[in-house]
Amino acid sequence: MGLGETELIERYFRRPADAQCARRGDVPLGIGDDAALLAVPQGRQLVAAIDALVEGVHFPPGVPARSIGHRALAVNLSDLAAMGAEPAWFLLSLTMPAADEAFLTEFAAGMHALADQHGVALVGGDTTGGPLVATVQALGTVAPGAALTRAGGRPGELVYVTGTPGDAAAGLQLLLDTASGASLDEQGRQYLVNRFLYPAPRVALGRLLPGIASACIDVSDGLAADAGRLAAASGCGLQIDAGCVPASAALRKQRGDAGARRLALTGGEDYELCFTVPPGKAAVLAAQLDIVKCTATCIGSLVAGSGIDLREDGQPLELDLRGFDHFAGA
Amino acid sequence: MGLGETELIERYFRRPADAQCARRGDVPLGIGDDAALLAVPQGRQLVAAIDALVEGVHFPPGVPARSIGHRALAVNLSDLAAMGAEPAWFLLSLTMPAADEAFLTEFAAGMHALADQHGVALVGGDTTGGPLVATVQALGTVAPGAALTRAGGRPGELVYVTGTPGDAAAGLQLLLDTASGASLDEQGRQYLVNRFLYPAPRVALGRLLPGIASACIDVSDGLAADAGRLAAASGCGLQIDAGCVPASAALRKQRGDAGARRLALTGGEDYELCFTVPPGKAAVLAAQLDIVKCTATCIGSLVAGSGIDLREDGQPLELDLRGFDHFAGA
Repeated sequence: MGLGETELIERYFRRPADAQCARRGDVPLGIGDDAALLAVPQGRQLVAAIDALVEGVHFPPGVPARSIGHRALAVNLSDLAAMGAEPAWFLLSLTMPAADEAFLTEFAAGMHALADQHGVALVGGDTTGGPLVATVQALGTVAPGAALTRAGGRPGELVYVTGTPGDAAAGLQLLLDTASGASLDEQGRQYLVNRFLYPAPRVALGRLLPGIASACIDVSDGLAADAGRLAAASGCGLQIDAGCVPASAALRKQRGDAGARRLALTGGEDYELCFTVPPGKAAVLAAQLDIVKCTATCIGSLVAGSGIDLREDGQPLELDLRGFDHFAGA
Repeated sequence: MGLGETELIERYFRRPADAQCARRGDVPLGIGDDAALLAVPQGRQLVAAIDALVEGVHFPPGVPARSIGHRALAVNLSDLAAMGAEPAWFLLSLTMPAADEAFLTEFAAGMHALADQHGVALVGGDTTGGPLVATVQALGTVAPGAALTRAGGRPGELVYVTGTPGDAAAGLQLLLDTASGASLDEQGRQYLVNRFLYPAPRVALGRLLPGIASACIDVSDGLAADAGRLAAASGCGLQIDAGCVPASAALRKQRGDAGARRLALTGGEDYELCFTVPPGKAAVLAAQLDIVKCTATCIGSLVAGSGIDLREDGQPLELDLRGFDHFAGA
């Protein structure tokens, strides 16, 4: 006999009262009724994001269920981080072909571990039969007027990216084609694969950026494409010096310096933050990065005008910068 | 060339500034950034629900796209209504095999029409390729302490249901098997089909129920099963008099009185409200129903104990009351 929806939710998604995220005092009513009741702190604005992960689109069949649970939450926490918000709660809609208990155990473990790390609470959801799709809706709060958007950048501001983009795209390729890892040792291979399977949303840094950054976007479709979106929303042009684009040691070992930089500019699924900072605030940024143990690298600047001016060693660099679009080829 | 995600969202989901729901003053930032910014009124609690509609699970292939857009929002507004909440905003995650413009035009028209009817604003979303799944996350507000849950019922209270349950299940069956409508004229057939395709969430009544009703649930899996869930959550038993269960003229014409009552008790997808009221408040309820032009019928009462005591003409009536469960047969 199968597992009913009510029992499924009780067994896998209701947390024990001592779980980190179950101790929040701002959930008058969580999982189990028609809707959740949430106490938004007075004087805070609500920030809401929704993102779905679809098997065969956002991850290949056969990736660990733990990764799917982790990523479904991570991509939404990344959206909140890009707004400078403090994440608080999330809801999950999970459709899957069958109520597979091994899958659910691992999926829930991946999701709960990330939720506990950031102190966010699963407060409601919906599970049904269907193709494998995990949709998370994340809610957070921010001080009124403090939220970062894509549109706040101004000419002359410096453009930064956190971490080492490109790793996730290389990791996904390794999962799909193990031969592509020939030049890597096992440690390097695992590092890149884990960067795809378990991206770390930049929650702590995102919360510190209001007051320092002027505009922010999370990098999900490729650094150059997403930085270009930020510049366009800000009514600016974008200059990128490819030589400044950071790349991990593993990515450089696999592809060489130039190849690593290209993937760092075009690969997707990074969930790093790309943001702009007035030059006068670069020192404050450096101090805050140190506090949250996060790296961020200046890759260029916003300029008057429009479009992307991408250079390597002073020469124009031609790359396909359209970014990943789920319908562009449809 | 296909339609990109950004263009798709602009064309189909961003509303003109004069749309009813675009005039809300509480959306500092809507569609188009990493997340939406929302101004929750001071002194109100947030109410959040999420529900997915999956092709082949919640609706058969080939139903009008307008219905899918309508129902994706309707089922979530129904969840908020069951909490006694005032709906405010929603987010949409839509996965579909291709960016079909005829589908999107109709899907968006169905969703926007219902949104305008209830003054709720689409504030964010996500579209990707994949199987046809429409997930809506709805947000509303309620006065602190006023929200209705399933657990507030007490023995002796009267159990009501709005409208005429069973119609939607009959309508779905007519869509799947046109021969089942042999005893109906075209008007009756169309009435039942539309009750499945375009359910009317009981938003206005839901907002009036706090202070009158003690507990509430929305009827999505069958009246008897959902009323039983309310009774169980309230720590009560449930007595239902099948003879009191309302059924529409079309349903009675199709199935006879007894058959109509059975489907009214077991059919799903109604999105009516089932709620309990202390006998002393029945007159107040009647007055409020009159104001919002909604019918509600007393079908029984909560009693001490547990379980469902379902009777017809004084005799126990045996029905399969498990309600629809998307995984129970897995």
